[in-house]
Amino acid sequence: MPTRLSNYFLRTLREDPADAEVTSHKLLVRAGYIRRTSAGVFSWLPLGLKVKAKIERIIREEMATAGAHEVHFPALVPREPYDATGRWDEYGDLLFRLQDRKGGDYLLAPTHEEMFTLLVKDLYSSYKDLPLTIFQIQDKYRDEARPRAGLLRGREFTMKDAYSFDYTDAGLDASYEKQRSAYERIFQRLGLSYVIVQADAGAMGGSRSEEFLHPTPVGEDTFVQSAGGYAANVEAFHTEPVAPVAFDTLPPAQVFDTPDTPTIATLVAAANADHPREDREWQASDTLKNVVLAVTHLDGTRELVVVGVPGDREVDDKRAEVAFAPGEVEAATDEDFRKHPELVKGYIGPVRGEQAVLGEKGTSGIRYLLDPRVADGTAWITGANEPGKHVFGLVAGRDFTADGIVEVAAVREGDPAPDGSGPVTLERGMEIGHVFQLGRKYAEVLGLKVLDENGKLVTVTMGSYGIGVTRILAIIAEENNDEKGLIWPASVAPFDVHVVATGKDDAVYGIAEDVIAQLEAAGLDVLYDDRPKVSPGVKFGDAELIGVPRVLVVGRGAADGQVELWNRATGERETIAIADAVAQFTQA
Amino acid sequence: MPTRLSNYFLRTLREDPADAEVTSHKLLVRAGYIRRTSAGVFSWLPLGLKVKAKIERIIREEMATAGAHEVHFPALVPREPYDATGRWDEYGDLLFRLQDRKGGDYLLAPTHEEMFTLLVKDLYSSYKDLPLTIFQIQDKYRDEARPRAGLLRGREFTMKDAYSFDYTDAGLDASYEKQRSAYERIFQRLGLSYVIVQADAGAMGGSRSEEFLHPTPVGEDTFVQSAGGYAANVEAFHTEPVAPVAFDTLPPAQVFDTPDTPTIATLVAAANADHPREDREWQASDTLKNVVLAVTHLDGTRELVVVGVPGDREVDDKRAEVAFAPGEVEAATDEDFRKHPELVKGYIGPVRGEQAVLGEKGTSGIRYLLDPRVADGTAWITGANEPGKHVFGLVAGRDFTADGIVEVAAVREGDPAPDGSGPVTLERGMEIGHVFQLGRKYAEVLGLKVLDENGKLVTVTMGSYGIGVTRILAIIAEENNDEKGLIWPASVAPFDVHVVATGKDDAVYGIAEDVIAQLEAAGLDVLYDDRPKVSPGVKFGDAELIGVPRVLVVGRGAADGQVELWNRATGERETIAIADAVAQFTQA
Repeated sequence: MPTRLSNYFLRTLREDPADAEVTSHKLLVRAGYIRRTSAGVFSWLPLGLKVKAKIERIIREEMATAGAHEVHFPALVPREPYDATGRWDEYGDLLFRLQDRKGGDYLLAPTHEEMFTLLVKDLYSSYKDLPLTIFQIQDKYRDEARPRAGLLRGREFTMKDAYSFDYTDAGLDASYEKQRSAYERIFQRLGLSYVIVQADAGAMGGSRSEEFLHPTPVGEDTFVQSAGGYAANVEAFHTEPVAPVAFDTLPPAQVFDTPDTPTIATLVAAANADHPREDREWQASDTLKNVVLAVTHLDGTRELVVVGVPGDREVDDKRAEVAFAPGEVEAATDEDFRKHPELVKGYIGPVRGEQAVLGEKGTSGIRYLLDPRVADGTAWITGANEPGKHVFGLVAGRDFTADGIVEVAAVREGDPAPDGSGPVTLERGMEIGHVFQLGRKYAEVLGLKVLDENGKLVTVTMGSYGIGVTRILAIIAEENNDEKGLIWPASVAPFDVHVVATGKDDAVYGIAEDVIAQLEAAGLDVLYDDRPKVSPGVKFGDAELIGVPRVLVVGRGAADGQVELWNRATGERETIAIADAVAQFTQA
Repeated sequence: MPTRLSNYFLRTLREDPADAEVTSHKLLVRAGYIRRTSAGVFSWLPLGLKVKAKIERIIREEMATAGAHEVHFPALVPREPYDATGRWDEYGDLLFRLQDRKGGDYLLAPTHEEMFTLLVKDLYSSYKDLPLTIFQIQDKYRDEARPRAGLLRGREFTMKDAYSFDYTDAGLDASYEKQRSAYERIFQRLGLSYVIVQADAGAMGGSRSEEFLHPTPVGEDTFVQSAGGYAANVEAFHTEPVAPVAFDTLPPAQVFDTPDTPTIATLVAAANADHPREDREWQASDTLKNVVLAVTHLDGTRELVVVGVPGDREVDDKRAEVAFAPGEVEAATDEDFRKHPELVKGYIGPVRGEQAVLGEKGTSGIRYLLDPRVADGTAWITGANEPGKHVFGLVAGRDFTADGIVEVAAVREGDPAPDGSGPVTLERGMEIGHVFQLGRKYAEVLGLKVLDENGKLVTVTMGSYGIGVTRILAIIAEENNDEKGLIWPASVAPFDVHVVATGKDDAVYGIAEDVIAQLEAAGLDVLYDDRPKVSPGVKFGDAELIGVPRVLVVGRGAADGQVELWNRATGERETIAIADAVAQFTQA
């Protein structure tokens, strides 16, 4: 039996919902796939559930091919395991916490590493039980600060999360490769192009970490690519430290009055005006910009850190986040500056005269970290720690030292890929999957060990593999639409064919039923617009909005054995004989 | 490809889990279907998920046949709609409440009446849109005080909940019948016997309310049945009020000393010893027992109520619960009695001398309600409100009056069915489904109205239809097992066939693979015990524990073309030719 629009639970809307900011959100609501329940939380209507089920089915099939077994954890989990790993606190405001009637602490799990680890610990004890990969497709919770992008960033969302368990590093590599290949097949079947980029392994300490990014100009993630095959997200991009150069011949540093030069641009202009050099003009890249950051560590302490980057680069927030994780980083506040009068805003530098101000030996006691390009032997124009003064020709390794290197400077088009594969370009994308080697962190904390071949207890090593199911659905919608509505790839379309019968002639509807019976006999799932009192225009508009890619129009020509094939993606309409239409669908 | 036990995520346990009290919980854990995560919250292992998916599939198919459309609501829902209906408070400790980072109040929905109602209000506005029935299969939350029975009463559990929407009472009746029939088909397919009993419509105020009970001596619900076809749970059982009788000829009441008769038994003995009557002995049913209850109303006020029931009947807690809903009822405490010295414990009665004590005109001001059997004109032995004294021949309607009738007395074998269909028997059962007419309560409160044929706004009337999916799974397990393990009905068994290959001969395993390929070609889902180093005894034990109803043993005889068919339910084993075995499975 086809699904009949005359009694389907569906209402399409002419207007965009007021609270929707992104295309996928607008269209999925207007076409009757989802409804917003509260910020970042959605109810699913029949059409939406069908697409979601198709995505989940593809994922399940590929997980089975990869040898992964499905399990299912509760959303409501007790605090204790998350305390053991420190995540009860680390998650901060992102975590939905609650208590039961006895005062026991619970959370709505944002991810289930702890539960996976404990379940395997509960059941397995020998190397013979491994390798093992288990996964679930389950609803997760994150109390996002600004859940604004519809399903792209929800507070209740569906994820497929898989974990592999091995007792050797080689085993982990093999399990990782299996999931990585499964992800490639999944995205291919979903019709989503992807780039696999190196990602930051983060505080987890694992070795391999790769993201599947779907390239799109509206993506919220930036990644770099080289013609030679390098690809990484900006957080993971690595700048090779510049080799030290000799500084024997360099002249001593000089402090100059540079009034009203609190920015790099004003400084460069003043330098060229008042202290020009002979061979070429001063440039922003000749200056050393010192940026004061405040890092809040896990134990709650707040530390000021100054980072020195070439003046032609900004500090990239995401790279800074990774550099200081698991601490939280932000720009220093006025309050921070008040506590450190030795930092003269706009004129900050590592030294004041002969005296170190920043770094281990500095008077401020503030940690000082340098961009890898600020190699020993390079000379810089930088703040002199006096209002309106800069020091010229200050040489790294001779006149100042730092406490270490830090990668927080923004990556730019043309920067060299760290693997020598050439200059990189910057692209934008959306994360659609993440595979990474967790390593032994969780197994160690939670005591997941097995006996190896020699009867020795060894700690298990884990891999983590995630896909946001509802996010993927939104991304597919985001990428497959036009001004008239959605255009689903066939693999996830809610129906195989949308049959639209038009007019008021009963015979037309009878012919439509006949055609549908043939389509269904061939195993096709049909949506049938059988509404007798609705105009063809409204029906076509709904078909365009709903976005089943193949539409079959049964109208006036039906009595003469003619129907219209309508390709929603290309807009092409072709009038052909009914028998040919059925044949086209059932053979395709 | 079969599921191979050599690498399936499964460990069977020899011992019952320490925290399990009911058979289904013990066996589902031991056989590797579920694991407890916290009190009343479970993780699902692959075997458990497969059974759950089969139950869900049967439900989905029958919902589709009944014309219901699937939707899905979030578990995390905002407080406001539940405030509007009063349920945010009414649910009391059963509700998991939490706040988001902005201090907004949320709950983990125990049921979704409010959300269903609001969604339909959001999308529909005309009688032409109705009737509509929508359902979801979704995880629900109830913070049970004593979640002890495994999946039978969990704190996170899966339910199918459906709601129908109509604008006429006749429409509601039709929608109700469709769901009721669907439930019958579902339970038939699940292999669960059931009795449909009248249930209390409760505070909802709807008209029809029926429960599907699975009859079983270990059931927690009691229901009554008559040979003439009446069936009701005890809460819904109705006692026809006895007709008033004339009391003109009855002698006046007399107070006697009845020392040390605080119980009905001691009272009856004393009455027969000291004040015998001529025609027959005094019996407990000649006495009127007055029980003091304390009702806590929704607004928090506590009211004492005295109920008068024939002395041969106890007050039934569940019937009392229903009688005083939505208030909460308990026995009066010592504290309550201290505040009311006019109630003489053990000797309570409606009057003291000529003076009314209970009821509207009584000195105590306490409400007084009577069992329907205490008709006007009937005479009773009851307390005289003085220590050690009872009054004999106190006539209802002459010597005392009450504020109303109440049905709190326990139902007994032999009580007449209210429909005149004969005496009832008492049976025990487990609730497996509930269908009832909600009526207009939610639609009224939340403003769900549609325009009718005359362009008039009318309030929608709703039906509610629930099945506890995980509870059903537990009940099926509870009913289908023996001392060796589970025995699933074929319709929900995790696999169609369990093939056990035994011994160390590679050829046997080769033959098993051949047989499996044939079974799979016929569309059967096969679990294959291919573990080469596990003894036949352990394999058979696991097969018995796991409980796939049809087992095929490929062992020593395989080389001669012989295998063993093993019926897990009957225990019968039959040696037959491989070709015949395959034929039996693939034709069945």
